[in-house]
Amino acid sequence: MGQPNRDTATGTVYLVGSGPGDPDLLTVKAARLLEDADIVLHDKLPGPEIIEQLPDDRSEDVGKRAGGERTSQKEINERLVELARAGKTVVRLKGGDPFVFGRGGEEAEYLAAHDVPFEVVPGITSAVAAPGVAGIPVTHRDHTSSVSFVTGHEDPTKEESAVDWEALAATGGTIVVLMGVGRLPDYTAALREAGMDAGTPVALIERGTWPGQRVATGTLETIVEVRDEEDISPPAVTVIGDVAGSREAVVDFLANEVGDETSASAPTEPEE
Amino acid sequence: MGQPNRDTATGTVYLVGSGPGDPDLLTVKAARLLEDADIVLHDKLPGPEIIEQLPDDRSEDVGKRAGGERTSQKEINERLVELARAGKTVVRLKGGDPFVFGRGGEEAEYLAAHDVPFEVVPGITSAVAAPGVAGIPVTHRDHTSSVSFVTGHEDPTKEESAVDWEALAATGGTIVVLMGVGRLPDYTAALREAGMDAGTPVALIERGTWPGQRVATGTLETIVEVRDEEDISPPAVTVIGDVAGSREAVVDFLANEVGDETSASAPTEPEE
Ligand SMILES: C[S@@+](CC[C@H](N)C(=O)[O-])C[C@H]1O[C@@H](n2cnc3c(N)ncnc32)[C@H](O)[C@@H]1O
Ligand SMILES: C[S@@+](CC[C@H](N)C(=O)[O-])C[C@H]1O[C@@H](n2cnc3c(N)ncnc32)[C@H](O)[C@@H]1O
Repeated sequence: MGQPNRDTATGTVYLVGSGPGDPDLLTVKAARLLEDADIVLHDKLPGPEIIEQLPDDRSEDVGKRAGGERTSQKEINERLVELARAGKTVVRLKGGDPFVFGRGGEEAEYLAAHDVPFEVVPGITSAVAAPGVAGIPVTHRDHTSSVSFVTGHEDPTKEESAVDWEALAATGGTIVVLMGVGRLPDYTAALREAGMDAGTPVALIERGTWPGQRVATGTLETIVEVRDEEDISPPAVTVIGDVAGSREAVVDFLANEVGDETSASAPTEPEE
Repeated sequence: MGQPNRDTATGTVYLVGSGPGDPDLLTVKAARLLEDADIVLHDKLPGPEIIEQLPDDRSEDVGKRAGGERTSQKEINERLVELARAGKTVVRLKGGDPFVFGRGGEEAEYLAAHDVPFEVVPGITSAVAAPGVAGIPVTHRDHTSSVSFVTGHEDPTKEESAVDWEALAATGGTIVVLMGVGRLPDYTAALREAGMDAGTPVALIERGTWPGQRVATGTLETIVEVRDEEDISPPAVTVIGDVAGSREAVVDFLANEVGDETSASAPTEPEE
C-alpha cells in the first residue's frame, strides 16, 4: 500500500470510518482501501449496502461469532495484531467515524503497544450525517453555539453514570444521543428534571442513509410515545434541541431520499 | 444529475461538505458532484488541495469579493437561488460538514423559502478528523462519554455570550473548539475558573489533513504559550480533555502523514 512500515514484515492497520451507511458517503480513501486491503474486519454498523459490497474472500465479520455471541474487543485487538504481523494490509472498518464512540482509540493504543503501525482514516459520523440528511443542522446560528454527542447507553439514574445530563442541559446546545433508543425514557426525564422545556423539539433518525431510513419527531414530552408508536429501533440517533424543529421549514424541498416513514419495523440489531 | 425537481426549470442545489481538506477524504458523492456540477460556489475553507482541483470555468469563490471584503451570507443565498432558477446544478462546497458551524442550515432555509430543491451531502467535520489524524480520539471509553463542539469565536466575558463554558466544563466530556485560536486565552481561563484542572491536556491541530498540518500540545495552563511559540494560526481546532493526552501513547506508530511540526508559520486566513 506504499505506507512506510517500521518493520517490512509487519503490515499496516487502517482504522477506517465507513460513514453513516450510504456507499456514496464512503470517502475516496476508504473506497480505495476496501478495494486494496488484504483483509477487512467489520461488524454490522457500516450497514447493509456497504457490507454487501465487501468481497467475501477478504472480509471477516467480527461483530458476531458462530454462536451468535459478540466477539470481544480483546479478541478483535488480538486478531488485528496477528494479521498485521502476518504482513497483511488490514482494514478495520467501523460505522461512522472510528473515533466517535467507535472504540478506535482503544484499538490504536493496542496496536501501538504491540508495535503495529496504523493509520486513521476518518469517516462521517452518523451523529452529524443522520440528522443532516433529514434536514436537521446540528448547529445553527439562530439556535445554538454548541453541539454535544453523548452515549445513551448508560443508566442515567445510576450513581456512577458518567453522563451528566444536567450539565448537558445547561450548555443550551444541541444534544445528539447515540445508542439511545432503549434508554430514551430515562434521559428525556433526566433532561426535563434538569430544567429543559418539555416542548423542546426532539427527532429520532433511524438507519440514517440506509435503505428504509426513517425520521420521527416530537418533543421531550412526546418522543417516547412516538418511538413506541413508530417502533423506532437501533441504530438511531436522537437529536434534542431547537434545530430538531427546523426540519419542518425545509423538508418539502429536501431532495435527499428519505425512506417510507411508515414502513415495516426495523431489524433489531443489538446496540453496541 | 437525475435528481427530481419540483419544477423542471429549477436546478438543484447541493450543500456539500468537503471534509477537512485532504482530497482523499472527499466522499465518493462529493467527488462526483464536483465533476458534474454546472457551477461550484466555495470559499477558502475546503483547503488548497481541493480548491486547486476545482475547474476554473465552473467555480466561483464566494469567500472574498474583488475588494478583499467577504461576500455576505445574504449575497451567497441570493446567488444560489439565482443560479438554481437559471436551471443550473449548483454545488455549494463547504469545509468539513455543511451543518457543523457551516451556516448550511441558513442556506437550506433560504432555498426552501424560495422553492429551490436542495440536497444535503454530509462531509467529515474537521472537529472529528483533525484530532483523529493526529491520533486523538474525541471519545474514549476510559476518558469520556461525551464530546462537545463549540465555537470559540465569541467573547466569553460578554454578558450575552451564548457559550456556557461552565456547563461545558461540568459535562466532564471532551471539548473541541472551532474558530478558537484567537480567543484561546479567554476560554482556557473561563474553563479553569469553572473548575477544570490546570493540568488538563490540550491539543491544537492546525490545518488538519492540509499540506503542512501541525500539532501542538500542552495543558490548560500552558497552551496559550505554546500557541504563541509555535505561531499556531487559523484554521485550527482546540481539543480539551484527557483524550488530548492519549496521543502520546500512539504517535510513534501513527502512519498518518503529519507535517513538519516546526515548519514556517501558517497563512493567516481570517476565522469565519
Ligand atoms: C457504537 S456507536 C458507533 C458510532 C459511529 N462510530 C459513528 O461515528 O457514527 C453506534 C450508534 O451509532 C448510531 N448510528 C450509527 N449508524 C447510524 C445510522 N446510519 N443512523 C442512525 N444512527 C446511527 C446509533 O446511535 C448507534 O447506536
Ligand atoms: C466556520 S467553521 C466551519 C467548520 C466546518 N463546517 C467543519 O465541519 O469542519 C471554521 C473552523 O473550522 C475549523 N477547521 C476547518 N477546517 C480545519 C482543518 N483542516 N484543520 C483544523 N481546523 C479546521 C477551524 O476551527 C476553523 O476556524
